[in-house]
Amino acid sequence: MSKPVVIEVTRGPLVESRHEGVAAVVKPDGTVVGSWGDIDARILPRSANKPIQAMAFVESGAVEKFGLGDEHISLACASHLGEKRHVDTVRAWLKRVGLSEADLECGVHPPRLQSSIEALVRDNAQPTPAFNNCSGKHTGFLTTAVTYGEPTKGYIKYDHPVQRRLRTVMSDLCGSNADAFAYGTDGCGIPTLATPVRLLARAMASMAEPSRLSNKHAAAAGRIRKAMNAEPFMMAGTGSFGTRINEALPGVVQVKGGAEGVFCGMLPTLGLGIALKMWDGAGRAAEVAMATLLGHLGVLPGERREEMLHPPVKNVVGLLVGEMRASKSWLG
Amino acid sequence: MSKPVVIEVTRGPLVESRHEGVAAVVKPDGTVVGSWGDIDARILPRSANKPIQAMAFVESGAVEKFGLGDEHISLACASHLGEKRHVDTVRAWLKRVGLSEADLECGVHPPRLQSSIEALVRDNAQPTPAFNNCSGKHTGFLTTAVTYGEPTKGYIKYDHPVQRRLRTVMSDLCGSNADAFAYGTDGCGIPTLATPVRLLARAMASMAEPSRLSNKHAAAAGRIRKAMNAEPFMMAGTGSFGTRINEALPGVVQVKGGAEGVFCGMLPTLGLGIALKMWDGAGRAAEVAMATLLGHLGVLPGERREEMLHPPVKNVVGLLVGEMRASKSWLG
Repeated sequence: MSKPVVIEVTRGPLVESRHEGVAAVVKPDGTVVGSWGDIDARILPRSANKPIQAMAFVESGAVEKFGLGDEHISLACASHLGEKRHVDTVRAWLKRVGLSEADLECGVHPPRLQSSIEALVRDNAQPTPAFNNCSGKHTGFLTTAVTYGEPTKGYIKYDHPVQRRLRTVMSDLCGSNADAFAYGTDGCGIPTLATPVRLLARAMASMAEPSRLSNKHAAAAGRIRKAMNAEPFMMAGTGSFGTRINEALPGVVQVKGGAEGVFCGMLPTLGLGIALKMWDGAGRAAEVAMATLLGHLGVLPGERREEMLHPPVKNVVGLLVGEMRASKSWLG
Repeated sequence: MSKPVVIEVTRGPLVESRHEGVAAVVKPDGTVVGSWGDIDARILPRSANKPIQAMAFVESGAVEKFGLGDEHISLACASHLGEKRHVDTVRAWLKRVGLSEADLECGVHPPRLQSSIEALVRDNAQPTPAFNNCSGKHTGFLTTAVTYGEPTKGYIKYDHPVQRRLRTVMSDLCGSNADAFAYGTDGCGIPTLATPVRLLARAMASMAEPSRLSNKHAAAAGRIRKAMNAEPFMMAGTGSFGTRINEALPGVVQVKGGAEGVFCGMLPTLGLGIALKMWDGAGRAAEVAMATLLGHLGVLPGERREEMLHPPVKNVVGLLVGEMRASKSWLG
């Protein structure tokens, strides 16, 4: 087994904390071109595979049927911060397909951006399901069910056609039967499939360079990549690492992070897919690991490059007291 | 080297994430009675050694001079959540020693409890230095300087008498010269000393069972332990793991956590000290590791015991989807 991904957090002269992970860079045919740690280990992709989960929505013809655009497709792939434009767009989209927030089964959590929380408090308002970071993905699921004339209730369940369709797409993209994967329940209630890192990277590669796929899959993958680059704000929001990456190199890089330290990426010009997971679930380390891998592959945006490779650690008064970085044992 | 501390996070049938750490249980004479991972590795104790840092404050006679009590001593050991009682007490204390928030050099961050942030927004107010989780400790530092007639300005600097005194106490408690320790800058601006886990645990043991120490040190240690149990709310606040532990078994257990996955504990009835660090810096895992160690040593409070050993992982709608736990390879 090759050396694992290692991200260090320094403070003064010490490495204060240390994150270990696994990463794979794979071609659409499954050829592994980069491997760190045990890439046959199974991980739960969580939100990092939302672009894959958006495939069936795009393939349903719902985009054309309801006159949707990049902003909606990007939202269907998003873990958004609950900013006004995210919430307003989800609400208007639901209305357009004849539904409302009451149909969302993702639950309610406070928006992730502190300023969004504060805006709610100022308005003396409560968050609603549209504020859930997954509300765009769920609206995509609902829209797919409406398009196919399926019941919308229970669309989050393992055996609902909406979820079955996700597994069919996943099987086609990763080259393995996803119906055989074990699964847990994601934060938003849908199944999250235990996927070997190698296969998750291959699925991303298939989306990045879809010539091996059916025309239908290939067209949907291209449409989704385009939307991720065209509407990076909808993918996450203000200050987000993923939004910054996706807006910087359109056509070259599309990334998506997930809970518990997962990050995936598509590199269409190189014909590669990336999947990585920090074993401890640390999002801070997953971001530095993704930036490091993009740099290693020559596709890290130039703007704020140093800050992405070596995020500063500051104390409360703003003094630089350390940094994060890839360890010398990995790609540092 | 013995097996490391391992805390697992499950989701459905999978171990989704995994935290590794180091822990030592030590007697005041330095005898190691429990060891997991490399206990000679150096860690930055961060806020977990605030009880040690409060020693010089109590020994200065400031408590008597200014008519202070358990609530102030507990605050001097605290990483508080910025709730009204914390902030009000710090402000009144500063006034009592002739100072104000302008003298605090810890900087300003939003309070840690979401409801405290929301209260500020509702009042259209901004956080001030008293909201900093370290404001009690810093007020203790200022009070010590005032008591000794030293300049208060620059009390956070390595060579200020206030900080030098902390190193003298640390040296006495851990049995090694703390002036020789490397150091980084803590979040609140003071030096945080790179301390072998074994010695940090020994320092905690010396506070737990101080008969080997000078009378002055022994009296201060007892006073601090009493205050931590008498005013557990001041140590942290609503819903905090540390507050729950410290209020449950007065005279038996006193714990304090720190940033980046550090947790320390004093067990006076057993005459033991505990120090642990999760290498990835995860606070969620440090809490489960401390609960597991307390259970292993027979001093985990009965109330909400299961929840502390196996914190539930719930999804957004409140469904139980996994749990945290010590791995079978450790003490699970």
